[in-house]
Amino acid sequence: MTSLSPLDAATADRQVGTIVPAILCGGSGSRLWPVSRREFAKQHVPILGGASPFQRTLQRLAGEIFAPPVVIGAADSQFLLADQARDVGAAPEIALEPEGRDTLAAVALAACLAARRDPEAIVLVMPSDHLVPDIAAFEAAASAAARVAVDGRIVVLGIPPDAPATGYGYIVPGAPLGTEARVVDRFVEKPDAERAAALIAEGALWNAGLFCFRADDALREIGALAPGALLAVERGIAEGREDLGALHLGPAFASAPKISFDHAVMERTDRAAVVPAALPWSDIGDWKAVWQLSRHDARGVAAEGRVHAVDVSDSYLRSDGRRLLCALGVSGLAVVDTGDAVLVAPIDRAQEVKALVGDLDARGFPEARTPARVHRPWGWYQTMDLGERFRVKRIVVNPGQRFSLQTHHHRAEHWIVVRGTAEVTRDDTVTLVRENESIYLPLGCRHRLSNPGRIPVEIVEVQTGAYLEEDDIVRFEDDYGRS
Amino acid sequence: MTSLSPLDAATADRQVGTIVPAILCGGSGSRLWPVSRREFAKQHVPILGGASPFQRTLQRLAGEIFAPPVVIGAADSQFLLADQARDVGAAPEIALEPEGRDTLAAVALAACLAARRDPEAIVLVMPSDHLVPDIAAFEAAASAAARVAVDGRIVVLGIPPDAPATGYGYIVPGAPLGTEARVVDRFVEKPDAERAAALIAEGALWNAGLFCFRADDALREIGALAPGALLAVERGIAEGREDLGALHLGPAFASAPKISFDHAVMERTDRAAVVPAALPWSDIGDWKAVWQLSRHDARGVAAEGRVHAVDVSDSYLRSDGRRLLCALGVSGLAVVDTGDAVLVAPIDRAQEVKALVGDLDARGFPEARTPARVHRPWGWYQTMDLGERFRVKRIVVNPGQRFSLQTHHHRAEHWIVVRGTAEVTRDDTVTLVRENESIYLPLGCRHRLSNPGRIPVEIVEVQTGAYLEEDDIVRFEDDYGRS
Repeated sequence: MTSLSPLDAATADRQVGTIVPAILCGGSGSRLWPVSRREFAKQHVPILGGASPFQRTLQRLAGEIFAPPVVIGAADSQFLLADQARDVGAAPEIALEPEGRDTLAAVALAACLAARRDPEAIVLVMPSDHLVPDIAAFEAAASAAARVAVDGRIVVLGIPPDAPATGYGYIVPGAPLGTEARVVDRFVEKPDAERAAALIAEGALWNAGLFCFRADDALREIGALAPGALLAVERGIAEGREDLGALHLGPAFASAPKISFDHAVMERTDRAAVVPAALPWSDIGDWKAVWQLSRHDARGVAAEGRVHAVDVSDSYLRSDGRRLLCALGVSGLAVVDTGDAVLVAPIDRAQEVKALVGDLDARGFPEARTPARVHRPWGWYQTMDLGERFRVKRIVVNPGQRFSLQTHHHRAEHWIVVRGTAEVTRDDTVTLVRENESIYLPLGCRHRLSNPGRIPVEIVEVQTGAYLEEDDIVRFEDDYGRS
Repeated sequence: MTSLSPLDAATADRQVGTIVPAILCGGSGSRLWPVSRREFAKQHVPILGGASPFQRTLQRLAGEIFAPPVVIGAADSQFLLADQARDVGAAPEIALEPEGRDTLAAVALAACLAARRDPEAIVLVMPSDHLVPDIAAFEAAASAAARVAVDGRIVVLGIPPDAPATGYGYIVPGAPLGTEARVVDRFVEKPDAERAAALIAEGALWNAGLFCFRADDALREIGALAPGALLAVERGIAEGREDLGALHLGPAFASAPKISFDHAVMERTDRAAVVPAALPWSDIGDWKAVWQLSRHDARGVAAEGRVHAVDVSDSYLRSDGRRLLCALGVSGLAVVDTGDAVLVAPIDRAQEVKALVGDLDARGFPEARTPARVHRPWGWYQTMDLGERFRVKRIVVNPGQRFSLQTHHHRAEHWIVVRGTAEVTRDDTVTLVRENESIYLPLGCRHRLSNPGRIPVEIVEVQTGAYLEEDDIVRFEDDYGRS
């Protein structure tokens, strides 16, 4: 199924087919809390404004050297993946892991899916949360890696370091392998700063999690070095089901060992090669990285949203939403304000936010996991006000989508349509409710909201009752398998 | 009209009548932004939880040595003053200045009103925003001041300093005057730290703005030293009108010179006396003071509301409302989060918040003046959500109160009653809307909400339309003089 496209004859000494990009979407990115959450991971958040890192990754793959991507994600992010892909006009193949098993299983899954297209397909594996501003450089690096992979090598791209960072893995290149590659002498994981400087002096490169291989070669290596993982993935695929445009892996997938592709394959295979790629790149790993990537004023202040700073230096100040964030006389601080949470921490301690979020989670703070805006298969909702016996939500239902047919035991609901036209089922009647109209859903009635139109429906929901939590819901029918 | 009450014979060598407390409520307290605002001044905010400083002041005056207080406030705080007084069971006499003219005019006004009760009434003037935890000590100080004032002295209370503070005025006492008082040698305003220490060594006392005098004596002194001020106040009273339980001063009041009672009278009269009063006291002047007054953990962290702190020391962390405030690795910081604004500043620079708010105001940020929760004669409202063509408000209408009869040119409104029973006028019909019921008010209809019941009515209002600002309102009738 791979179509051949001519490569620039000046740079290519052989032809490779299009490259199948495989995007790994399993991470959670809790270092960017409170903007990212367990249930709204970093790659889906518009951290730097505009498109999310996942969407930017899809946009980076629009060139004709790439086939439609394979996206490997978590089952509970299915609709987020589909929505965000659709928003940027991409139509990836989506495969959903019942639970995350680190990158070996995900890479094996990507290789299996690419091999179904063409056993000799060239696969380029990449994380979903990287920022790579120079698309031409990225395409050049991908092509170079593909030219090496087509000859049977398992390629890792190596990024020339610009600082002795301690948070990354390093690759020490060995003997040349043709003109574009080197054999891998060894991998070194997260060295201390002194060791990192020595590695850089030795010519070591950063490992950014970018791998390239022929699908059949990768499957053969994984089968040889980690046969249990390959078996679990193959059985997970065999047990899987296609639903709403995504492949849901079966439960056997969860028996794959939890190990990285680096450890299980790259460090052990004798086919490893490294292709250096001068690729400006960031993994947007924490608020310090976001600060560095953002536009600063002369005093090093990066401000997003409604921010007023007086005598502030070297700080990241962000207000998502309508609130006004004022900082006075601080330096080296990250302040991040979302609809439901505020973080204040020194920028140089941004790495510790991950532990803070774990701590919040252990103490039962819902803000550790759940974002203010909750994504659902049909759209999203957000609580805007909560009183003693009432709750106000803003709800958006995407075109063609609808709620489950449901009832509540403890609450009545008032729906006021503020945008679009809703079709509302209430017991045995179906009513069109237009902009600026409202409808009342008494406690105990069976009801459902559908959006039959071509623009999103936006409603304000006012719930009243003595118990107003999400678990007071009985579903009779559901388009998304939740009843 | 003054009733005599016996004082403790052991401490009093003569009898004085009850004391008329005069509470000056004109200040704005912008150093406590964002919790206090120009339109919701410090004395009305429950800064330390529970009652507001104004309410605590009223509660401090419940003893039988005090007559019902006189409250001098700004015209636009009338309903806040009345509501907060009613909430603590107080029934002060309220006089409203058309504009603030500093303390000379306010003290003259208080003296005039007390003189209407009894020309020889003993008046005790105090700010509305002080924290005085020891009521017995306060009553003892008031009685001591009254015993000196009854002989014709204009008394200022002097607080023994506990630190060489630079933000207060100092009183240097002179020769003894009986057993309880000293003449005033001189006043020194806001000295630097070195000068303050020297003053303390000399026996100087803090001037906390507490004055005591016979009404007729004060009026005579003001008449002699600042005749224009007295004339302006007397004419303002003569032009004034009683409305909804408060005296609204006439426009002549605004011609009073803008000067403090300290400068105009205390520093110039030969009747000045100082009565030392060992009175633990705070003016809750800024976030540093609030931090000092709040309960700390072992590392000096005072936290209010939903706060989680990791490796934080010597900081004040406050979240009013539902949001979660997380601080990691900071020291000496004040972070204050309200519904619509967040402040981050070093505690030691808390004094600079006032200038910051002035800056915000100059740049047109509405948060500088208007609080998230807006108080109205009939209750309060708060915007909880704002979309492109809709706005959601929570509205509370106090028992017996009602909106103006009004119409809007650009918006329709849905009202959902979530607590109490509302009586809604819509054009020619009047409907009772009960808890969990709603009513629709189309664009252009004349409408009004009344609370005929004995508990507050709480509604969620959803406005829809292209223009959703407060100035789209035409009032036909209003109980509060706004039509």
